[in-house]
Amino acid sequence: MPEASFFTDMLQSITDHGRQLLFSGSRNTQAAAKADLETLCEMLLSSRGEASGMALAAEILDRWGALGSEGAQKFFYMLQQKFGPDTARLDRAIEDYRTDKSSAAVIALHQAAEPRRQELLRRLNHAPNGTATLVRMRQQLLASKDRSEAYHALDADFTHLFGSWFNRGFLTLRPIDWTTPAYILEKIIRYEAVHEIAGWEELRRRLAPADRRCFAFFHPRLADEPLVFVEVALTRSVPKAIADVLDEGREQIHADEATTAVFYSISNCQDGLRGISFGNFLIKQVVEDLRKDLPGLKNFVTLSPVPGFARWLASVRATGDRSLSGAALETLTLLDDPNWPGRESSAAEVERVLLPLAARYFLTERTPEGRPVDPVARFHLGNGARLERVNFLGDRSPKAMQQAHGLMVNYLYKLDDIVANHEALAQRGEVIASPAVKSLLSQSDEGRRGGNGQQGSRAFAQLMNSTLGGGRK
Amino acid sequence: MPEASFFTDMLQSITDHGRQLLFSGSRNTQAAAKADLETLCEMLLSSRGEASGMALAAEILDRWGALGSEGAQKFFYMLQQKFGPDTARLDRAIEDYRTDKSSAAVIALHQAAEPRRQELLRRLNHAPNGTATLVRMRQQLLASKDRSEAYHALDADFTHLFGSWFNRGFLTLRPIDWTTPAYILEKIIRYEAVHEIAGWEELRRRLAPADRRCFAFFHPRLADEPLVFVEVALTRSVPKAIADVLDEGREQIHADEATTAVFYSISNCQDGLRGISFGNFLIKQVVEDLRKDLPGLKNFVTLSPVPGFARWLASVRATGDRSLSGAALETLTLLDDPNWPGRESSAAEVERVLLPLAARYFLTERTPEGRPVDPVARFHLGNGARLERVNFLGDRSPKAMQQAHGLMVNYLYKLDDIVANHEALAQRGEVIASPAVKSLLSQSDEGRRGGNGQQGSRAFAQLMNSTLGGGRK
Amino acid sequence: MPEASFFTDMLQSITDHGRQLLFSGSRNTQAAAKADLETLCEMLLSSRGEASGMALAAEILDRWGALGSEGAQKFFYMLQQKFGPDTARLDRAIEDYRTDKSSAAVIALHQAAEPRRQELLRRLNHAPNGTATLVRMRQQLLASKDRSEAYHALDADFTHLFGSWFNRGFLTLRPIDWTTPAYILEKIIRYEAVHEIAGWEELRRRLAPADRRCFAFFHPRLADEPLVFVEVALTRSVPKAIADVLDEGREQIHADEATTAVFYSISNCQDGLRGISFGNFLIKQVVEDLRKDLPGLKNFVTLSPVPGFARWLASVRATGDRSLSGAALETLTLLDDPNWPGRESSAAEVERVLLPLAARYFLTERTPEGRPVDPVARFHLGNGARLERVNFLGDRSPKAMQQAHGLMVNYLYKLDDIVANHEALAQRGEVIASPAVKSLLSQSDEGRRGGNGQQGSRAFAQLMNSTLGGGRK
Amino acid sequence: MPEASFFTDMLQSITDHGRQLLFSGSRNTQAAAKADLETLCEMLLSSRGEASGMALAAEILDRWGALGSEGAQKFFYMLQQKFGPDTARLDRAIEDYRTDKSSAAVIALHQAAEPRRQELLRRLNHAPNGTATLVRMRQQLLASKDRSEAYHALDADFTHLFGSWFNRGFLTLRPIDWTTPAYILEKIIRYEAVHEIAGWEELRRRLAPADRRCFAFFHPRLADEPLVFVEVALTRSVPKAIADVLDEGREQIHADEATTAVFYSISNCQDGLRGISFGNFLIKQVVEDLRKDLPGLKNFVTLSPVPGFARWLASVRATGDRSLSGAALETLTLLDDPNWPGRESSAAEVERVLLPLAARYFLTERTPEGRPVDPVARFHLGNGARLERVNFLGDRSPKAMQQAHGLMVNYLYKLDDIVANHEALAQRGEVIASPAVKSLLSQSDEGRRGGNGQQGSRAFAQLMNSTLGGGRK
Repeated sequence: MPEASFFTDMLQSITDHGRQLLFSGSRNTQAAAKADLETLCEMLLSSRGEASGMALAAEILDRWGALGSEGAQKFFYMLQQKFGPDTARLDRAIEDYRTDKSSAAVIALHQAAEPRRQELLRRLNHAPNGTATLVRMRQQLLASKDRSEAYHALDADFTHLFGSWFNRGFLTLRPIDWTTPAYILEKIIRYEAVHEIAGWEELRRRLAPADRRCFAFFHPRLADEPLVFVEVALTRSVPKAIADVLDEGREQIHADEATTAVFYSISNCQDGLRGISFGNFLIKQVVEDLRKDLPGLKNFVTLSPVPGFARWLASVRATGDRSLSGAALETLTLLDDPNWPGRESSAAEVERVLLPLAARYFLTERTPEGRPVDPVARFHLGNGARLERVNFLGDRSPKAMQQAHGLMVNYLYKLDDIVANHEALAQRGEVIASPAVKSLLSQSDEGRRGGNGQQGSRAFAQLMNSTLGGGRK
Repeated sequence: MPEASFFTDMLQSITDHGRQLLFSGSRNTQAAAKADLETLCEMLLSSRGEASGMALAAEILDRWGALGSEGAQKFFYMLQQKFGPDTARLDRAIEDYRTDKSSAAVIALHQAAEPRRQELLRRLNHAPNGTATLVRMRQQLLASKDRSEAYHALDADFTHLFGSWFNRGFLTLRPIDWTTPAYILEKIIRYEAVHEIAGWEELRRRLAPADRRCFAFFHPRLADEPLVFVEVALTRSVPKAIADVLDEGREQIHADEATTAVFYSISNCQDGLRGISFGNFLIKQVVEDLRKDLPGLKNFVTLSPVPGFARWLASVRATGDRSLSGAALETLTLLDDPNWPGRESSAAEVERVLLPLAARYFLTERTPEGRPVDPVARFHLGNGARLERVNFLGDRSPKAMQQAHGLMVNYLYKLDDIVANHEALAQRGEVIASPAVKSLLSQSDEGRRGGNGQQGSRAFAQLMNSTLGGGRK
Repeated sequence: MPEASFFTDMLQSITDHGRQLLFSGSRNTQAAAKADLETLCEMLLSSRGEASGMALAAEILDRWGALGSEGAQKFFYMLQQKFGPDTARLDRAIEDYRTDKSSAAVIALHQAAEPRRQELLRRLNHAPNGTATLVRMRQQLLASKDRSEAYHALDADFTHLFGSWFNRGFLTLRPIDWTTPAYILEKIIRYEAVHEIAGWEELRRRLAPADRRCFAFFHPRLADEPLVFVEVALTRSVPKAIADVLDEGREQIHADEATTAVFYSISNCQDGLRGISFGNFLIKQVVEDLRKDLPGLKNFVTLSPVPGFARWLASVRATGDRSLSGAALETLTLLDDPNWPGRESSAAEVERVLLPLAARYFLTERTPEGRPVDPVARFHLGNGARLERVNFLGDRSPKAMQQAHGLMVNYLYKLDDIVANHEALAQRGEVIASPAVKSLLSQSDEGRRGGNGQQGSRAFAQLMNSTLGGGRK
Repeated sequence: MPEASFFTDMLQSITDHGRQLLFSGSRNTQAAAKADLETLCEMLLSSRGEASGMALAAEILDRWGALGSEGAQKFFYMLQQKFGPDTARLDRAIEDYRTDKSSAAVIALHQAAEPRRQELLRRLNHAPNGTATLVRMRQQLLASKDRSEAYHALDADFTHLFGSWFNRGFLTLRPIDWTTPAYILEKIIRYEAVHEIAGWEELRRRLAPADRRCFAFFHPRLADEPLVFVEVALTRSVPKAIADVLDEGREQIHADEATTAVFYSISNCQDGLRGISFGNFLIKQVVEDLRKDLPGLKNFVTLSPVPGFARWLASVRATGDRSLSGAALETLTLLDDPNWPGRESSAAEVERVLLPLAARYFLTERTPEGRPVDPVARFHLGNGARLERVNFLGDRSPKAMQQAHGLMVNYLYKLDDIVANHEALAQRGEVIASPAVKSLLSQSDEGRRGGNGQQGSRAFAQLMNSTLGGGRK
């Protein structure tokens, strides 16, 4: 913190000197003061002085911050229209390349084809707090309804630059516990996206007991902001329901007695970094860290939500998917009464039909790109985990009932298999699951006919892809 | 340190699992084990699994490390030949772009024009200690005599990527003093490039006294390696000679008594990062830091070498530059006797001729790009400093006598003027100097005719540019 | 923390080995296991082995912790009865001394007169967490109703040893802010004794704003426990009422704008350390620290409660103190209606009578030892502060209304006067106050006759001394 | 450091204010300025103000620091003469006690018998750097040749107070390695008392390799000064000679491969703390620490000098001890030629005679108090170690040849036996040794008659006790 804030102070000071010169000084500063954002951006791109550059960057970001959402939208549009590549230069570079395919010509072509936005964003990044402001800028971009060419072009630039700036080599893992500074802890409360933390007392119950752990990734340019964090319970068995983990009255154990580390909540904190992946590294680091610290730990599992299940099931029911028998469809109508979990007979019937459908959801459904349809499954399976168990009524909270009819699943991280599991999915599209989960599939009459439903499911999966995403895995 | 090493451990562990799978596992691993470096690089570029990717990256870097210098040269050549852009794809992208100049087409063109080396280097960077190894790789590239197209193409990639990875936002400033860990201090001894540090006792004299300071920049991925450092003396006047600063018997003062901070040595530590500039930021941060800590400080100056002066003067004498009077040329022959500084009359004569020539060297000579010819001057003047004073026989060490006939100069950093000075040079090519230095110019009969010598000097300056550089400023 | 806990681990391990030997080993361990506390204490005093000593100490403290309050009382009594000095030895030492008044004889006499309890407590202190347990032991002693000889003898031993162990040279000052670990912050909530902190949100309001500071003293053997802390508000004027400081809607300022640091709450945290003074040092260190950090600060004042005022006033009224005119006594009956502050006319009348009485309370009343009767006044005036202002209705909370009829005062810490003020009180018993406060005294007809009431007041002051104390200043 | 230095700054500031008042102010300061040390000490004892007290303490310590050795001697004498107990008060307290043997009377007696020096030293300790100065004061006391009553009385006070101030609960263990700040490392070079460290390069060889460790104890009031440190080599066997450990060309191993931790050098750093024991705790903490860090470690041994052996042997030879056969005495004359180790036949003969004598030296010789005569043996055996092996010609350095005819020994620390071994020595005076060492004893004809030489040896042991001591174990 002191280091970071010192650096920020220093940037601020240089920037202030530059701004003074630019916007109140004797020379051509009137121009700058009156200039619109586009002109300022052009000035920034053509600026050769470092201090005036930082001053311009700060001015642009300040003005951007003061724009309403409509103004911001126009700003994005302007960036796309006016700060693409220099087409004249690009055309020349193409001609040169066609004449002489030398390395130098390729380099020139590559540089000419780079949208001028990228250099602009790089220079904006030099402003004090530039990185944080640009992360917010992308957050606003992602939040906009517009999905035009402008949107995609601009987001490609952000994704490219953020991928480099948030390179995992720069991330530092820090344990979060009851000795963590309060200003970090209040962000844990705010960013928790899976199982809400109601306040400081609940936070204490999640962090202070000897059988709880939490870890977060931080980045030097966003020093006070966790990027992603994971909450861990140390237990003596793999829990089937979130209540086993979070219940106030649960029995606490000593960390040394634990055989199992349960990753029960992973939250991304920065919407503006959606798609810049760190979570996979987080889990692997945490597994390594826990193994060193607690040699008694044998199992590393998650207790995870299934956020896409209810919507998928609804679409299957709606399309009258032939793979579902009439009896099964009939049973599923029980779900339409919100009190079904309370009725024992209903619950038992639902369970018999729901679990095989869940197995199908995980094992045979695919997105158009051939990936699992559930976003959390994509994350953990892509990470090298194995689908270990499907837990009926694992989470009875309204949110979980609505998203997944209460289903939760455990993914198992087995260090020796992570690489092979990951490669199986990455190279062959194969979901690795436990025999128990696989056998669920064959228990249903739908199992063999899973493929039939694929067409409808693909459309669904595309929908999912575009609407789910950041903030939850 | 622990954090960094923990991260390295973790990377190592994931990498090891990946390597096991790749090089001794059951599948197509025989192929990998037998593959040559080119094949491995192709495998790395086409790899989709993270662990296998890291394993391949580590394998490639390990094998690279074992190559002799000839092998390394071949490796560089191979990178240039085989890992440029995919020309077929590039040609297609060009065609598409000529048909439809959409954003998407530009993005595709930009991506297609990117040499495949860049992605390859990015993936190599994920190996444990990848960054440090790539810095060494570029160091070897820079050290090679070859200046072919391959060299320039490859160095452009390194420069582009390092510029992003070593973004100044990631650098942390740390004071170096007698409380600094020994393993850092031994690197200060090793990397000092301006005024050699003979051993621990001399290091102590530079760091421990109350009127000495030292600061270095560090980077999270090179945690134990300073990137650049500056040594500072706190004094009550602007010193004219390095002996005033480094003499063992000098009078020490309390930091509070100091009015002047003298930056008497700035050393870059990583040859492989040549051209990736941090030194300018270092000085400005240190000025800010010292001002906060010691409000009594009024002047921030350097005591700097003039590494290009003797060579420039030799070239001026050799070309029989008409701007030099015969009497001046006659006087300069005194320099050919190495004992000239010891003879009072010689020294006085030399001084009368040398100082105006020095003023001309700084104020009117320019590189073909219009920049000052002295590399240290380029650095400080480009940084916004003003040329304050030329010190005759400021450094009598053999190195300084040989490079600069003993000249040293003071550059003055005045916070309120830094921006204007910098802009004057950056925008108008004007060197800002004190009246005293300027008046030196007019004292000589050469002053008015300075321009005459420019043509010869340009050639010299180009020579300088290509042979001087990292390791000293 | 890690260091402290490592040390504790290590002590624990050595202790465990010792206990094993003592209480379950082969030798005379049955004896130890069956021994009562007195026997164990005797064993500890005669033990020569370090490990067995630590084991015994741990056993004694464990058993003590399991005693009920009656048992603890008996334990204290036993310590006093059985672990005074060895009288036979003492008598011999007295005889020897009377024969030969050598240094050696004096040393022997001094050692013989030392209660064996002191060595016993020293050895108990070697147990893991020994210091913390002994602090709790004294807390229980102070809480007991018994004020017998046993109580005083034992407390003299504790006071002597704690004075040495909690020597201010061992205390470290740490800022407490919103970056402080949560497990420390929750103790700040718990220990705040002057203006209660209702929860985390209120704590945040006291610590996080730029114009708030908090500092605490810690001790290496009680690493996670603050000993005393002070809360500071940075303001632009000296506040008259606590609401000015704590009001949620107050205007926040930048720290650089502040001219005044207001110490508005000082809380001792450890009841068991009552009478071991650190608060005076705390304030002086904090003043120094703030002055360095914020050169704009000119005034260092408190906003303090007057906890003894209402009781003193009641005793004055009750004794029919002749120094109070009938009219004044009449006015004071307004206080008996709890709603008096709400009635403007009442409040004005009360103010006219109350302020001069307050001046008398501070300036002329004295304890039998000649010290100010108000415990908070004793603390700050003894510390070298000056009584600056008496604030009518400065705190309308029920507690303040009950203890002080709402009065608050400001004490002023002026660094150049601290020594003189302190000496004035310490050497001459003189309370230094501002002219404004002094003039209050003369405004009242009671001023001149202040002395008359002293006898009654002395009795009152003795009462105060014995009932007020730790936990609030 | 910053904390400590801040504290010192603050003390300095308060002290300065006090001094100003005392020594240059308006009141009775002339008196103080002219007063001699005795008067100042009396003023300090009677001072009630804190600031003036600190000022007096600082003044006394400053003046003391300026005394020559003769003046210091007089100062010690003065302390003994004038600052013993108040005899009148003591006599009264004795009378009171004889009349009424109450707790209060005992407390009063105890306080009256305390030399006034103790309170004086306590108050001197409040001066800035007071503790460090008092440690130096005792160092000077111990260095004085005088062993009068004054010496013993004064040293008893120092010992009592230091025992409390340097309570092991305040000590912190820190690893010393190549990441340790240089200003600590230079003290390791300076204080190493067993095997000299020639400079930074040699220090690096002792600290940087993966199979080396070093640990030191620090105290909060002497923050920059190690109190005691131990150097450790990690090996695969128990070394017989110091060359195995320190040889530059030795084979380095990875820490994980080590089975044995060798404590090959323990140095006390502060002469002024002689007799205040921390070394025993140091070793036990380090053993615990290493065990946690490196579970592969099975053996914890020392490689220790035998500093008293040659002198003891000389005294045995000189007294014509009848327990030595003529042949043995004859063989021992070989030692008188300094080149004996170089002659193979001599060395073999010497070994045959010397090892049994060494066994006798350790196992049967005792000081008058019944303790082992070798000071290093007293330390390790008293610590609970076992005498494991005697190594012939383990150290051929001139110092070791002179002190021990080259002998070194290994002491074994076995955690499960430490308590029992310690108790065996502490309670029954029994030296625990390995069978191999015991069998050496019986190999000699002297073994059975060991007791005969005891009288002469006792005298020797007393001599040893008084001349050996701090700085080496």
